[in-house]
Amino acid sequence: MSENSFQALPGFRDFDPQKCAIRNYFFATWRKVAVRYGFVEYEVPTVESTELYLKKTGGELPTQLFRFVDQGQRDITLRPEITASLGRLAISTQRDYPKPLKWFEIGCCYRYEKPQKGRLREFYQFNADILGEQGSCADSELIALAIDCLLELGLQKEDVVVRVSDRKVWQDFAEAHNISAEQHPEFLAIIDKLERERPEQLQAKLDVFGLQLSQLQEFISNPPLGCSAAFSELQSDLAARGMQDFIELDLTIVRGLAYYTGLVFEIFDRQKNLRAVAGGGRYDNLVNDLSEGSLQLPATGFAMGDVVIRHLVEQCPQANALLQQFLAQGSCEVFVISEHAEQRAVMLGCVTELRRAGLRVDYALAGAKFNNQLKKAQKAGAAYVLVIPQPGEQAELRELASRASQKADLAQLVQQLCSQQAAN
Amino acid sequence: MSENSFQALPGFRDFDPQKCAIRNYFFATWRKVAVRYGFVEYEVPTVESTELYLKKTGGELPTQLFRFVDQGQRDITLRPEITASLGRLAISTQRDYPKPLKWFEIGCCYRYEKPQKGRLREFYQFNADILGEQGSCADSELIALAIDCLLELGLQKEDVVVRVSDRKVWQDFAEAHNISAEQHPEFLAIIDKLERERPEQLQAKLDVFGLQLSQLQEFISNPPLGCSAAFSELQSDLAARGMQDFIELDLTIVRGLAYYTGLVFEIFDRQKNLRAVAGGGRYDNLVNDLSEGSLQLPATGFAMGDVVIRHLVEQCPQANALLQQFLAQGSCEVFVISEHAEQRAVMLGCVTELRRAGLRVDYALAGAKFNNQLKKAQKAGAAYVLVIPQPGEQAELRELASRASQKADLAQLVQQLCSQQAAN
Repeated sequence: MSENSFQALPGFRDFDPQKCAIRNYFFATWRKVAVRYGFVEYEVPTVESTELYLKKTGGELPTQLFRFVDQGQRDITLRPEITASLGRLAISTQRDYPKPLKWFEIGCCYRYEKPQKGRLREFYQFNADILGEQGSCADSELIALAIDCLLELGLQKEDVVVRVSDRKVWQDFAEAHNISAEQHPEFLAIIDKLERERPEQLQAKLDVFGLQLSQLQEFISNPPLGCSAAFSELQSDLAARGMQDFIELDLTIVRGLAYYTGLVFEIFDRQKNLRAVAGGGRYDNLVNDLSEGSLQLPATGFAMGDVVIRHLVEQCPQANALLQQFLAQGSCEVFVISEHAEQRAVMLGCVTELRRAGLRVDYALAGAKFNNQLKKAQKAGAAYVLVIPQPGEQAELRELASRASQKADLAQLVQQLCSQQAAN
Repeated sequence: MSENSFQALPGFRDFDPQKCAIRNYFFATWRKVAVRYGFVEYEVPTVESTELYLKKTGGELPTQLFRFVDQGQRDITLRPEITASLGRLAISTQRDYPKPLKWFEIGCCYRYEKPQKGRLREFYQFNADILGEQGSCADSELIALAIDCLLELGLQKEDVVVRVSDRKVWQDFAEAHNISAEQHPEFLAIIDKLERERPEQLQAKLDVFGLQLSQLQEFISNPPLGCSAAFSELQSDLAARGMQDFIELDLTIVRGLAYYTGLVFEIFDRQKNLRAVAGGGRYDNLVNDLSEGSLQLPATGFAMGDVVIRHLVEQCPQANALLQQFLAQGSCEVFVISEHAEQRAVMLGCVTELRRAGLRVDYALAGAKFNNQLKKAQKAGAAYVLVIPQPGEQAELRELASRASQKADLAQLVQQLCSQQAAN
């Protein structure tokens, strides 16, 4: 076997059942908390016309696209993110829903990047967005959702921080320093690089605007009180939810994507070991742009990937304990054993009845010696073993953990298990 | 807005929340029944090296691939099916699991076909496979799983039929008629087309083998008793589960894919309005071939797509009623109303507490007049409305359906709702 041709591609993952259970833990948590928050689920195609991303997303994405030409000569792309498709979907269906829309999605995205820790070519994202509400009350609801997802995973304010910024603050700063509206994106790009580029490089770029790097650093360290009305409102709303200790004003955050407008945020581990756990913000103009001015739908949203959050949960003992507890749940409730081939039909009948009652039931498909069936039951982590009797004899129900055993008519024991299930 | 560039691509679908709820109904049913059967979930990449499909899948698939060259000059393909990837995954991880493996998957597949009723370019599949058991007891377990999924959806034996065949019967037939092993695939391809091609065309192809079309038709109409030992065993196992009326021996079924070996089956609506709901069968050699002889893992599996099953459920009144019942479930349990802006913090605190208790809770994000908030609660399908009081007054809990109302301290009403939730 050629090892290379029969492995997953670089940056793509196989999820065997153990890995898939971990994936499902995050999916289940995201879905559970989003539903409590009144968000409803949607989905968009994995493949889109490339035009959707080139024209509307902007930023650095175009260089990382999985882009190709299909048999019908269409220029198409594996989706690098969800927001552009969400905009399209909202435009075509928003009439059918009361505003604001509170929508979430869980699915794959793709980026052609060098695979490394926290970055893969195929990864899952949880996307949550609120469309149709321009006030910071929507950002508060959205960030609270993100925080409650983290809390549900067992992460605390000592583990994570939501670094919040407001692009409007930088807009005001730019205006006060005579930077023209056209130069604004270029100026924001410098802010975006403040923590990643060398001071000389940054200063060279700032010279164009007649600014000193130290001026920016001073402004970031001591932002003028009340410089962002949206942030002040956000703070008070999150305090009312008991979440004030999770957020910090951090003006270095601007988010790379061109479509963001106001409040933006990124969630990081406090230890700063990892890339961003989640990121998002306001994009009040995207729907307007996509609809060529025919629909105003101010919006705010975030995405949380599955890769970094998993690293974070595994590095925080309390969160990791919850994950391990989830994974340890036995999958089999009743294992049915029949020693004699003539009892196969009776066994299959019982198995079917117990499953219809909602129980997780297994048995030795091809039969086996009694002790081997018992071993299979133990390997399957079964709570109970039900032993099918010979005609005229009594059936046996064993609880594997306590080794308690009970003998009775088969029909009676099946009935007992079904009633137990119905009561749960 | 250019209508064409901002629609989903042909054969791809947007799922707004209403459509996504229908999708999720099928996902939830598949997952629920598979778990009761002791199957565990896995996932494989959406994109694979094209070689995996060209070499191992065979049949008509290679003409329908979404195939392209990535930035690293790799020949890659959006997965047209799951089985080849499953084979690879089983080879690399089977040591970690007791046999037989009972594994399922729910995810997207892609085929470049002309979009039409029941056929799309991006569609979901439920895949269930049993690896490591060669007896027909595995096929029985697998087909029972498929039938129980249909029953769970409200479909009855009057609605659907599992048409079962055995490739070994045709192998025996071919040997008895001096068709060489090399010609076998060509012969099977003729059987596969029996119901789709014109008699003259079929006869012309049969001439090569010195066979008459009427001979085949007679053999299919009156298959020799006991011609398939596997089918007889399957019948008796399914009878023990009360599922005998769902299956029929139908030797016209051979399944297009080259990797099938023994029992094969397709599930159809009895009215014959639709394409196959599901299809599958034994593929005892695939793992052996993929591992170049280093691992024997006989296997059987099936795939059920989301497109045809949805048409079928919608055309069967009993099944459709269950779907509608699922969709009618209200998403909001408690809608919290606060009339005065000064009460916002108290309201947000209550909302947070109720959500943490697991309740689905919503409120008017930006506030509104009392009656408008009440209207929002009704639109959200809320079971209860909780009215935040002015300081010193009592809170009110209203049940919207019965219009019953209760006044008490806010903390007491919140506690009551949380206890109710814990008891559920």
